[in-house]
Amino acid sequence: MTEPTLFAESGFLRLRLDIAYDGSNFSGWAKQPQLRTVQEVVEEAISTIARIKVETIVAGRTDAGVHATGQVIHVDIPENLDLGDLAYRLNRILDADLRILKVSVAPPGFHARFSALRRQYSYKIQDANRVVLPLNRFDIATWYRPLNMDLMNQASALLLGENNFVAFCKFREGQTTIRDLQKFSWVRDEKGLLIADIVADAFCYSMVRNLVGAVACVGEGKFEPGWVKQVLDNEVRISDSLVYPAQGLTLEYVDYPADNQLLLRANATVRRRDDES
Amino acid sequence: MTEPTLFAESGFLRLRLDIAYDGSNFSGWAKQPQLRTVQEVVEEAISTIARIKVETIVAGRTDAGVHATGQVIHVDIPENLDLGDLAYRLNRILDADLRILKVSVAPPGFHARFSALRRQYSYKIQDANRVVLPLNRFDIATWYRPLNMDLMNQASALLLGENNFVAFCKFREGQTTIRDLQKFSWVRDEKGLLIADIVADAFCYSMVRNLVGAVACVGEGKFEPGWVKQVLDNEVRISDSLVYPAQGLTLEYVDYPADNQLLLRANATVRRRDDES
Repeated sequence: MTEPTLFAESGFLRLRLDIAYDGSNFSGWAKQPQLRTVQEVVEEAISTIARIKVETIVAGRTDAGVHATGQVIHVDIPENLDLGDLAYRLNRILDADLRILKVSVAPPGFHARFSALRRQYSYKIQDANRVVLPLNRFDIATWYRPLNMDLMNQASALLLGENNFVAFCKFREGQTTIRDLQKFSWVRDEKGLLIADIVADAFCYSMVRNLVGAVACVGEGKFEPGWVKQVLDNEVRISDSLVYPAQGLTLEYVDYPADNQLLLRANATVRRRDDES
Repeated sequence: MTEPTLFAESGFLRLRLDIAYDGSNFSGWAKQPQLRTVQEVVEEAISTIARIKVETIVAGRTDAGVHATGQVIHVDIPENLDLGDLAYRLNRILDADLRILKVSVAPPGFHARFSALRRQYSYKIQDANRVVLPLNRFDIATWYRPLNMDLMNQASALLLGENNFVAFCKFREGQTTIRDLQKFSWVRDEKGLLIADIVADAFCYSMVRNLVGAVACVGEGKFEPGWVKQVLDNEVRISDSLVYPAQGLTLEYVDYPADNQLLLRANATVRRRDDES
């Protein structure tokens, strides 16, 4: 594992970029050969304008098909670069499915990934075979059976807190599965859409979509709400078939501490990573 | 001009279909050789299930790129056809950018086009170079200058009523340009998006997008609000360059009279058409 760089090198300036994307035509965040990824596209755009090859660090490494309205990244660029209208200039060369919402100079100790306190995702389900309006189809998953929201809220509440979520995570080498699930609740909007609000300090691989799949089983009456707690406590990976589709998932927001706490938080996160290895 | 058929032929049943589409990948409603049109796709789907070649009549013939959330069509099908779950069966074979919201047996005298009392469109503009979120990009037009909504509302109000809108319509043979503009007003939503609500008995070719373009000129300060009234009164076609893009336009709703007034309304519309020719 490479040493995380909590500060920009001398002669470089760290920028924070708030970005949004429609994940439909991206193979996720992380660069992969031959595939169109958010990281590749955004790094290429910044490199074009900065005239130097840059690398970005992301707060939430979204999977293929997952969307973002509030993703945060950082990038270190030469400090003599003209930053005027940088967001506008980047958006001019980016396709419309990826937008730079804001560019700001990062405060000292800011690290998009390690300084983050928590990530907030939403998950949208149109259930009971109800029709999804064509203009809304890109970020909604569908399910043919009706889902009981009250039962889903009961089940979701049982998963809150710092737990070992290994049963809900696809295995990834060296990744902890102990996460602090701070919010997991469902509402129906005025059009009948089921929307989950899900917050944790961090999520492991496919965790949100697996939590949604398990809770949806309760919603359609297959299991009692208490079943999800048993699955959690068993600490045995449940079926991949319970992973709900990427399409319904959106990274909404990344929360950071006050500027004077950024470095403290980053160091704590890094220490925790070291403990694991 | 073929004689409008206000009733289904003997042995046939008239269905009303409420449909929605993302117009981005359609060359508009009306069938054209070699092009993907809503009419072609929906007629093909119904024909597949009805096992007979059908033709549809539409309430609002939308142009290429224009969307609909509340389009209405009718189609006459053999009355022995099993209608169970027809909307579901059609949606199974249609692409996700076209959805059948509802299928119902049309009341006597119902004609999707001629019985309609009025059509309601929306037009969405993100102004002042503000970023459009990727997931919302399909039905929003953008404008680089800030637009003054109050001035736009003043201008829009001057166009209300039954007028000859020839200055705002692309020429089309045999089409009246006298229309009753019943509503034309603007709001800003919580995200700063400018949204027009536009209602008329009917619209002529490119009329909504031309009205929007003219009023936006007032919004950016090029002309006083009274200018649109002068254009209206001059009855001389203004520039095509003032036609705003199809992307921002959505047919929201078609209004019909009570069932016992449908035939009366259809006959009145047809008579008016006859007067024109």
